[in-house]
Amino acid sequence: MNYPNGIKKSSNNIISSKIDYKNRGMNLEDDLNNTNNYYIEKEKAYIYKKPTPIKLVKVDYKKGKITEAYFSMPSTTDYNGIYKGKYIDYEAKETNNIKGFPLINIHEHQITHIRNIYKENGICFLIVRFTKLNVTYLLMAKDFLWYIDNNKKSYIPKEYFMEKGYQIKDKFIPRVDYLEIIDSLEDVK
Amino acid sequence: MNYPNGIKKSSNNIISSKIDYKNRGMNLEDDLNNTNNYYIEKEKAYIYKKPTPIKLVKVDYKKGKITEAYFSMPSTTDYNGIYKGKYIDYEAKETNNIKGFPLINIHEHQITHIRNIYKENGICFLIVRFTKLNVTYLLMAKDFLWYIDNNKKSYIPKEYFMEKGYQIKDKFIPRVDYLEIIDSLEDVK
Repeated sequence: MNYPNGIKKSSNNIISSKIDYKNRGMNLEDDLNNTNNYYIEKEKAYIYKKPTPIKLVKVDYKKGKITEAYFSMPSTTDYNGIYKGKYIDYEAKETNNIKGFPLINIHEHQITHIRNIYKENGICFLIVRFTKLNVTYLLMAKDFLWYIDNNKKSYIPKEYFMEKGYQIKDKFIPRVDYLEIIDSLEDVK
Repeated sequence: MNYPNGIKKSSNNIISSKIDYKNRGMNLEDDLNNTNNYYIEKEKAYIYKKPTPIKLVKVDYKKGKITEAYFSMPSTTDYNGIYKGKYIDYEAKETNNIKGFPLINIHEHQITHIRNIYKENGICFLIVRFTKLNVTYLLMAKDFLWYIDNNKKSYIPKEYFMEKGYQIKDKFIPRVDYLEIIDSLEDVK
């Protein structure tokens, strides 16, 4: 595969007659889009997924048609926006691993970005879904950075998420109500 | 042209052997990238241009190669990030028009977005460069929204920018120091 980690087929990007309806609303990206749209409707927060960065090679500008392009590496996290006037920023990942979250999923530029946002007092975190365990955690940037700065492991064990993270319970509306957790944290108020 | 307003050839998106070095650092997007990189280096602010949204039609995922895709309409502004812990968000446009800034350059979704960010107390504005006059203005969301809510014109006259906006003086480093203006405004402190 010549495209970076985390780039995959997504019903948001692809115009296709073969949308997989089985998985509709079942993957983390769809759940977050659903949730962010709910926040926008309720005028609670304005948080968007950034478009996937793409390097254009051949473009017919008259037709507006791109005929050769490649996925490129994102330099920041996928989601950002505003909540109560504050800057909010996060990365969301799914893993099939049941022991922990493989750090290969977050590349060096993104870690630098998370570090910068944390230092600048943004609300910054990871949302990690362990798909086989059907459980989703929010891990604040502070605890994420502490782990990678103090451990040599290639993954963050699930136990660390259980100890330092916050489980995001499945709901019907909105699906992954992560701002409920942010609201409960004293130090981000 | 089948692509939305504001999508154009850009040295940032295109890998090409025909980069136009004459214009390097001369267009607003390049100047803003230069400026935002400077802010990042100085650890002053973390503000990025969002990737251009692209609708993928045909992708060879094994090769990571996109063979058919189209530009799509952005639903938000082009730039956002964090400054002093606060959310900052803006749209940047160039115009050849000398009488004013044609509102066709900002589409309805973007106006809604600007309205939302303003209500949510984000730092939100437009940066408009009148290329033929070689002058660049920053216009706060409040004043932009006031104009479009109280006028029926298809453009914002240059005089309105002169009266309500702030001229961003050309500098060598950073090229368009718009945060200097934000710093000078009492009501965004």
